[in-house]
Amino acid sequence: MADLRVLPLGGLGEIGKNMTVVEHDGRIVVVDVGLRFPTPEMVGIDLVLPDFAYLRERVDDIEAIVVTHGHEDHLGALPWVIRELEGFQAPVYAGPLPTAMARSKLDEHKLRDVDLNEIEAGEVLELGPFSLELVHMTHSIPDSSAVALGTELGTVLITGDYKFDQTPVDGQPADVSRLAELGREGVLLLCGDSTNVDRDGFSPSESVVGPHLEEVFARCRGRIVVTSFASNIHRVQQVVDAAEALGRKVALVGRSMRKNVGIGRSLGHLEIPEGMLVGPREISDLPDERVVVISTGSQGEPLSALRRMAYRDHRQVELKEGDTVVFSATPIPGNERAVNETIDRLYHIGCDVITPRDAPVHASGHGYAEEVKLMLNLVKPRYVMPFHGDFKRLRLHAQLAEAVGVPPENIFQGDNGLPLDIDKRGAGFGAPEQSGMIFVDGVELGEMADVALRDRRMLSADGIFIVVVTIAEQDGRSVADPEVIFRGVPFLDEADELEEEIRLTVEESLSRAAGDRVREVDVLTDMLHDDLAKLVYDRLRRRPMVLPVVVEV
Amino acid sequence: MADLRVLPLGGLGEIGKNMTVVEHDGRIVVVDVGLRFPTPEMVGIDLVLPDFAYLRERVDDIEAIVVTHGHEDHLGALPWVIRELEGFQAPVYAGPLPTAMARSKLDEHKLRDVDLNEIEAGEVLELGPFSLELVHMTHSIPDSSAVALGTELGTVLITGDYKFDQTPVDGQPADVSRLAELGREGVLLLCGDSTNVDRDGFSPSESVVGPHLEEVFARCRGRIVVTSFASNIHRVQQVVDAAEALGRKVALVGRSMRKNVGIGRSLGHLEIPEGMLVGPREISDLPDERVVVISTGSQGEPLSALRRMAYRDHRQVELKEGDTVVFSATPIPGNERAVNETIDRLYHIGCDVITPRDAPVHASGHGYAEEVKLMLNLVKPRYVMPFHGDFKRLRLHAQLAEAVGVPPENIFQGDNGLPLDIDKRGAGFGAPEQSGMIFVDGVELGEMADVALRDRRMLSADGIFIVVVTIAEQDGRSVADPEVIFRGVPFLDEADELEEEIRLTVEESLSRAAGDRVREVDVLTDMLHDDLAKLVYDRLRRRPMVLPVVVEV
Repeated sequence: MADLRVLPLGGLGEIGKNMTVVEHDGRIVVVDVGLRFPTPEMVGIDLVLPDFAYLRERVDDIEAIVVTHGHEDHLGALPWVIRELEGFQAPVYAGPLPTAMARSKLDEHKLRDVDLNEIEAGEVLELGPFSLELVHMTHSIPDSSAVALGTELGTVLITGDYKFDQTPVDGQPADVSRLAELGREGVLLLCGDSTNVDRDGFSPSESVVGPHLEEVFARCRGRIVVTSFASNIHRVQQVVDAAEALGRKVALVGRSMRKNVGIGRSLGHLEIPEGMLVGPREISDLPDERVVVISTGSQGEPLSALRRMAYRDHRQVELKEGDTVVFSATPIPGNERAVNETIDRLYHIGCDVITPRDAPVHASGHGYAEEVKLMLNLVKPRYVMPFHGDFKRLRLHAQLAEAVGVPPENIFQGDNGLPLDIDKRGAGFGAPEQSGMIFVDGVELGEMADVALRDRRMLSADGIFIVVVTIAEQDGRSVADPEVIFRGVPFLDEADELEEEIRLTVEESLSRAAGDRVREVDVLTDMLHDDLAKLVYDRLRRRPMVLPVVVEV
Repeated sequence: MADLRVLPLGGLGEIGKNMTVVEHDGRIVVVDVGLRFPTPEMVGIDLVLPDFAYLRERVDDIEAIVVTHGHEDHLGALPWVIRELEGFQAPVYAGPLPTAMARSKLDEHKLRDVDLNEIEAGEVLELGPFSLELVHMTHSIPDSSAVALGTELGTVLITGDYKFDQTPVDGQPADVSRLAELGREGVLLLCGDSTNVDRDGFSPSESVVGPHLEEVFARCRGRIVVTSFASNIHRVQQVVDAAEALGRKVALVGRSMRKNVGIGRSLGHLEIPEGMLVGPREISDLPDERVVVISTGSQGEPLSALRRMAYRDHRQVELKEGDTVVFSATPIPGNERAVNETIDRLYHIGCDVITPRDAPVHASGHGYAEEVKLMLNLVKPRYVMPFHGDFKRLRLHAQLAEAVGVPPENIFQGDNGLPLDIDKRGAGFGAPEQSGMIFVDGVELGEMADVALRDRRMLSADGIFIVVVTIAEQDGRSVADPEVIFRGVPFLDEADELEEEIRLTVEESLSRAAGDRVREVDVLTDMLHDDLAKLVYDRLRRRPMVLPVVVEV
């Protein structure tokens, strides 16, 4: 009797870096390979990946990687993980848009040999002891799927991100019929999206946004800038449609906006009538009331097009009084300040700003509580393990499962690294496996514990003093004046005085060392460090890094 | 004819660091001396003060500093500004609680000679060409006042932070009668709080919070922790009352909570029945259902008591499943992530968490749009200059003023450093004066432009390489192996290899320098920097600070 193990490596107790290992009969399918963005404490870190140590020893056991959809928190870590998994040869499967986005990412990393395969929802693949099927779902990006992994114990259904949009922009609602069928056949375990379990009712349909955008546009006399996630192709479609209805041309601004619109058009997800698009340079040739700019920057990202416009630093779009900026997105938690700063700079210019608080110009891509319950009732899983949410949301999701009749003992509130082991007799958590964060810094990967981060925090808090002491190898006496260099230590008017004190301290330390017959460079360096750190703290009441360097000549 | 000038040095186009210079007949009254907290980009900075350069040359013209209330954004910069204003001798005036809080701050800075004076609302002082009167207002801290400065041109009314709470906890509503009287006598200029102009209607009364707290408490079976701003004395009172009604004792946790409760009790703002307070150590001796802890940390502050509890790192309070934490406060913009992290750690422990989204356990201290309009109608100002708000709120406040009938040409949407000059003929903005941010770093003050901040950002992003090169003074040849030290450069497995390459690069640079007959240390250092920076970037694809140090012996 083969056991089944479902091991989340990311996305539980957090929002982001979703990644799950499903293991059966010694073989592995990985569902999603997502990333997170660093918090300010992770100084200088570029990206955060799930710790995938569990897979390093198991590369040969991987049957496939499956990606539910094209968002960074589900797809973004793919090139990094593949690059680092030595000997990885397994195929990668995803729907058409995530495949195109994955290809673009892999190309950027020069990973052109990956066996990347576009599959359609409904298609069933046999992967060793698993069957794999994508079930079409609706979300804020086209070609989103749930993943159904069939095993001899039953089906594991991982929903990915979803909402039950009854009137999606492309007319393709989620395949509730197939979900119900899977439910009738018997779903062993449901791992469902928890992002919006704390919102009551049903989420509004994406297609309600279009008419509201048109209403807002109709009141605007100047230029209009709409900012949204570049991957929200259907939102872009609705902006284009609203612009067309009001006789405005559309310009795309921001690299990822142009790229995603290109991919979306090539896959037929986006229809832009001939002549609607104008280049950013042509904006100034058109009357203000004939332009809609679609721009990146809805999260207040420092280098984004909208942020540049707000700070009057964009080469092609110069905003002015009477222009309107529509935020067709809500800030991701943590981005509120950056978004508010951007909005306030726009007000300072004299623009009007419309956010989802002012008009329904945004709809979430994640289902609310009633949708989560509908999913549970359609699929009728034996076991439930909530996914994609902080601990609060995982608990609320568990309460919803209980409310629709799942026995409490069959509901598992998990954590990253905590495997759910299932066999014919039942299910339960196994011993925790390694999990956590891997940091990307430039092109390198590394661990949280790296001392460099502590150093960076220290450097960024108080700066650094470097004191170079040159001594003679023979007798340890100083043969050159100590060099004192500091960086990141502000407001140091009295620098000369402090430098002089540092020189005196060095001399005293050296003569004390000579008296104590200390000759080892390491010991001398430690002595200098202690004496100098004390001096600097006494003078500055700060603790910059103090780095004595002893050179013997 | 003496002119009147109202010059905001902080609080316009931002929320925080409120400070205003009112100038008449060559004499100055300063209203509020507040601070802001730094944003993450201000690496290592502790506090942000308004740039008060305007006052440095005018110290002898200052008649007084007046403080409207005891919050940091109105009072917090007082000791710093007084310390830095050479020759400052003028009196400081405030109501009883802000006076006590100011005294405590000045004591901490060893500024014991400041002429600090407690005054009562309604008392009228003559200060050179000004009359000064505090008008009692309601806010989220006791003893809040508006400041009425009478001049021969008319009265300038600066509201400070306020709401029109008709049922305040201490039974002392705002003195609308005096405001109306001032209005009848003729207010020349109203500078009003804009914090909540974007909220419709009237703000709920502080006293509605108490019954809701009691309802929430009544449902709790375990221990209860309530977190709120320590200065919100009336909130603390209501928590105590609710605890008493349900037979629970109260423990105060967090330094500022104990300090503010002490001040509040000594001034009679807080009544705690005999025997209600227990020490934090006694908590574990009481049954869970007999305890309410009032704690700091409502903003997720890293070292706060609640944050420590959430991370199971508090010495006296160890939370467990079944305990309830009530956030009787909303996150200040920018603190959302820290607050959410704290909440989620509490869920992870198994606590229940109640926030103002779940129950009305918080009331804002700032009046909503209808209150702002009421203020305008009571005071009937000739001119209006909205205060305390980002540019969006200043504009909305201006729209409200227009809605109640103030002519648009009499409404001034200002900015920090932009003086409003008024004489008998009219009012208008004068030429901008110096304004901006002053940074506090440890005990030192300094300017934004300080190169140290750029250095810190660079250090925190990518770390630092230090390469010490020792050359002979006579001929410039290397007399010791280059020392290579790096800090904050992570994941450097190949350090040895890179160190070796650095040594080779140093040798090449030195021999090239010798060939070019370069002997000046500065030029040599620049050459080394360019060569080494290129090498490091080629190898790491990062740009750490590269700091060659040339020592001549």
